[in-house]
Amino acid sequence: MLAPPLQRLVTELSKLPGIGNRTAQRLAFHMLRTSEQDAFALAEAIRDVKLKISLCEICFNLAEGPRCAICLDERRDEGVICVVEEAADVIPIERTHEFRGRYHVLGGALSPIDGVEPEDLRLAQLYARVSGLREVVLATNPTTTGEATALHIAAALHERVPEVAVTRLASGLPVGGDLEYADEVTLGRAFSGRRAL
Amino acid sequence: MLAPPLQRLVTELSKLPGIGNRTAQRLAFHMLRTSEQDAFALAEAIRDVKLKISLCEICFNLAEGPRCAICLDERRDEGVICVVEEAADVIPIERTHEFRGRYHVLGGALSPIDGVEPEDLRLAQLYARVSGLREVVLATNPTTTGEATALHIAAALHERVPEVAVTRLASGLPVGGDLEYADEVTLGRAFSGRRAL
Repeated sequence: MLAPPLQRLVTELSKLPGIGNRTAQRLAFHMLRTSEQDAFALAEAIRDVKLKISLCEICFNLAEGPRCAICLDERRDEGVICVVEEAADVIPIERTHEFRGRYHVLGGALSPIDGVEPEDLRLAQLYARVSGLREVVLATNPTTTGEATALHIAAALHERVPEVAVTRLASGLPVGGDLEYADEVTLGRAFSGRRAL
Repeated sequence: MLAPPLQRLVTELSKLPGIGNRTAQRLAFHMLRTSEQDAFALAEAIRDVKLKISLCEICFNLAEGPRCAICLDERRDEGVICVVEEAADVIPIERTHEFRGRYHVLGGALSPIDGVEPEDLRLAQLYARVSGLREVVLATNPTTTGEATALHIAAALHERVPEVAVTRLASGLPVGGDLEYADEVTLGRAFSGRRAL
């Protein structure tokens, strides 16, 4: 029903996560209406991201070149490494401005059910970086797989470098949240992690 | 915080309708993970749609070439023209398989408040096509501007070609809808348009 080039665009857009056929069609029609300049800029940006972005050779964060901007930044604290599951997790942490150390991107979380075993994560590369550190912050997700990954790494680090502090992000009530609507696991964590005022 | 090529992609994606910064970021990270082949296919499809799609010289539907697939299709009924606001409106109508005539895409609806006057729509081109027709179906949207446009065109057609039947799509309760939740305008239309069984 659609002209073939338009149908191809709808098909390609539908492959994106969270974009169904209707949205793809709406976006494709938008492309038709928008300026050639804007459309070409988007096409070019998509190509560029594949051609120019690689993984940092130190921390596996996204980089334009061999090393990422954080590993290249000499003002960052080299004594602390924050371990995250995915490169996308670096962004919300950076946004807090609470952490000035370096990162290590694991590339996932342990999940034997999905066939993700320790050797599938960038653990050897992490262990090669930890000697001489003050602290390793385990910032894997507060999910079953994220917790399991954090426990696995903590045990390995305690064995290899017992002098390095291993910490985990606090779990508890989200700021601005409402006690009434908190799930019991989160509320339980908030209790067990309560702090003196 | 993001590597520049990634930031550029997020910026370009955020310009799309209904895509906020968060979704743009999620889509950009998806592009990083997806195969080069898929990403390049999308970039190419965006370019192609701008380079290869034009407006049909007869009905202003989208076309790959001077005429659209519907105007080129000789099995379509040449005696009926369905008038729609936008090229995107052709698709849902085609999907019903209820209409086998030709189309005319106005390029909008009359809206003096937004500065859309009769001369801004493709009305002259419509009037040039109507002699000898059996029927013109006015399928502008059931909105204030769509209704106004339909009334305007109906008056002009009655004057120019009084022998041509001018019809309007029925308004009423959506199939599968619930009377309890129908708004009063729709329900009112359903009443005034009630048919003998």
